[in-house]
Amino acid sequence: MAQRRPFNFAPGPAALPEAVLEKAAAEMLDWRGSGMSVMEMSHRGPQFLSIHEKALADFHRLLGLGPEHKILFMQGGASAQNAIVPMNLLTNNPRCDYVHTGHWSAKSLKEAQHYGDLHLAATAEQAREIDGEMVPAFGYVPPMKEWRVRPDAAYLHLCGNETIGGVEIHNWPNLAAMGAGDVPLVIDASSHILSRPMDFSKVALAYGGAQKNIGPSGLTFVILREDLIRSRVPKAMDCCPSVFDYRGVLDNDSMLNTPSTYPIYIAGLVFEWLLEQGGVEAMGRINAQKAALLYGALDQSDFYQTKVARSSRSWMNVPFYLPDDRLYEPFLAGAKARGLLSLKGHKAVGGLRASIYNAMPLEGVQALVAYLADFEKEQS
Amino acid sequence: MAQRRPFNFAPGPAALPEAVLEKAAAEMLDWRGSGMSVMEMSHRGPQFLSIHEKALADFHRLLGLGPEHKILFMQGGASAQNAIVPMNLLTNNPRCDYVHTGHWSAKSLKEAQHYGDLHLAATAEQAREIDGEMVPAFGYVPPMKEWRVRPDAAYLHLCGNETIGGVEIHNWPNLAAMGAGDVPLVIDASSHILSRPMDFSKVALAYGGAQKNIGPSGLTFVILREDLIRSRVPKAMDCCPSVFDYRGVLDNDSMLNTPSTYPIYIAGLVFEWLLEQGGVEAMGRINAQKAALLYGALDQSDFYQTKVARSSRSWMNVPFYLPDDRLYEPFLAGAKARGLLSLKGHKAVGGLRASIYNAMPLEGVQALVAYLADFEKEQS
Repeated sequence: MAQRRPFNFAPGPAALPEAVLEKAAAEMLDWRGSGMSVMEMSHRGPQFLSIHEKALADFHRLLGLGPEHKILFMQGGASAQNAIVPMNLLTNNPRCDYVHTGHWSAKSLKEAQHYGDLHLAATAEQAREIDGEMVPAFGYVPPMKEWRVRPDAAYLHLCGNETIGGVEIHNWPNLAAMGAGDVPLVIDASSHILSRPMDFSKVALAYGGAQKNIGPSGLTFVILREDLIRSRVPKAMDCCPSVFDYRGVLDNDSMLNTPSTYPIYIAGLVFEWLLEQGGVEAMGRINAQKAALLYGALDQSDFYQTKVARSSRSWMNVPFYLPDDRLYEPFLAGAKARGLLSLKGHKAVGGLRASIYNAMPLEGVQALVAYLADFEKEQS
Repeated sequence: MAQRRPFNFAPGPAALPEAVLEKAAAEMLDWRGSGMSVMEMSHRGPQFLSIHEKALADFHRLLGLGPEHKILFMQGGASAQNAIVPMNLLTNNPRCDYVHTGHWSAKSLKEAQHYGDLHLAATAEQAREIDGEMVPAFGYVPPMKEWRVRPDAAYLHLCGNETIGGVEIHNWPNLAAMGAGDVPLVIDASSHILSRPMDFSKVALAYGGAQKNIGPSGLTFVILREDLIRSRVPKAMDCCPSVFDYRGVLDNDSMLNTPSTYPIYIAGLVFEWLLEQGGVEAMGRINAQKAALLYGALDQSDFYQTKVARSSRSWMNVPFYLPDDRLYEPFLAGAKARGLLSLKGHKAVGGLRASIYNAMPLEGVQALVAYLADFEKEQS
């Protein structure tokens, strides 16, 4: 199917597959003969329950989870989880370890300080040499051999992908090799969930907002190993609101209170679309190809600059810079004229950023790469 | 415009105006020439910001608020607010007073017990005589002259409308007359917000899920008098998650973290529709007419029974009962055959329930009343 709309490189909320939007539009006034929009369905009625259960089951299948991992649908985004994780996991042991790789891990660890005894297991706060090149602060993942995880920590927290810095942790750490084999691994996976196969056998808990690779904002996912909250930490802190107690949400199949029904429906359509595309294996192949194409174009040019260590480059968010600040405005205007939207970088770091989540087709990255070459030519 | 779909009496998530759904479907792939669905827009981009600001402004205008009241859009539903209210308002004074009128106020006060020193100012736990008729437990609002509010309480909490019992507080209490003139009034207004003009000059804080009169689930509104959190209780409890600290949400114009963007867009369309209909004054007139028609039909029949004291009858949720339990199944099947959906009562109280929020047209209630008469005739 030919692309009829512009390519949207927004960092999230982000582009959705056109086929999903078309289906949602067609079903808006009457979901499959029910006479109701999904928005109008009682969350405990048979129609919505079928949507909810299928979305959870398809997500579980896409992630390749075993029966020991359950999925919760919640509200409040990853930012709320920054508090909800420690409120649920630090009841008996205040020690929580964090790796600081940028903006989002900073938000997580600052919030955790209200609830526990925080230790930085590793940090990218200093510019340093990585694989022979000098890299600025928050332009890399600290080498895992340097991580210092407390063996008796209640958990180790990582941000899997930093959308602002464009830094991704491509493989989960081997905690046993760090002498911390008993420490549960907790991942903020908001911005790279479902982007490729991931080894969840190493993950005790992963959470995120839906608004990158899953669906609309207003929906939060939590993937957790059930024994973590059943036997290891069987009780949340007293101050934890009931609707954010993982045990209650799990016991009630994510229906402890009214869930975010329409976002769950859209997420379900995205899961169906992903399964049709070949699941995370296929996505991983396409995303690797998209990232290689874009980083390749940036690398072969002296005009565009990138700042992230090659081994830590995000497949999802590609920040890059122009040689002169006066060029950003014409670059963005020219991009928009070609139907390439939302390329402005985050205000915290400036520059440009192309977010190329699952719903960004290869053609979008090809169009961007063509524009990069043309814009450079125009300026030289 | 003729009704083309069934009438949906769901208690929430509930029916939405057809005109709103039609607009949402038409704009799904391209919001007003932006080339994006609203779901795909960066929440900090100019398009979504315009949607967000207009929704907040229209809601403020519909409620007839003065500048002292602000509106926040949050996530987590009214159930999350049951914890968020005390975490924000009990920092310096643990005393919180609650009125217990049914299922939802019970949930609120149970949650508040984790955070403060709870006092029941009034309760409907006992069956009793009201205006000369015997009324069962939770079938009435306790007469306000019997309320005992502590004059030094941090707030008094009411559930404005109990959707399960069908009990509504039709006028806010005069706290000064109760010797508690300094106590801020906090209302769970989830299920009757915007259903009629309400006197917000008496209200310090009102909250609710959006999924009755406003829009899709996944969006929470908080209406608050700014001085309540600026000068009266200038700090939330330490355990309050940052994203649920009213001050931070207010300081960041409800953009402290990614908001529930698509539900906000739909809410905005509902607000525009309400303004076109004539606002809450017009809604109040139509809702009074709908309630009078339905209660009138139930009252004039010996076949159908209602349990709520006349002075406490909800305009939004009308529970009623049949004389024989074996009749519920044929009643619901016959209703469905006529395009009258979701009339089953809540499992906690059984029976039937018609929820007739703003989006239920008068014609829907007329169709239900006609069916009530026909079903009764069939059975006699």
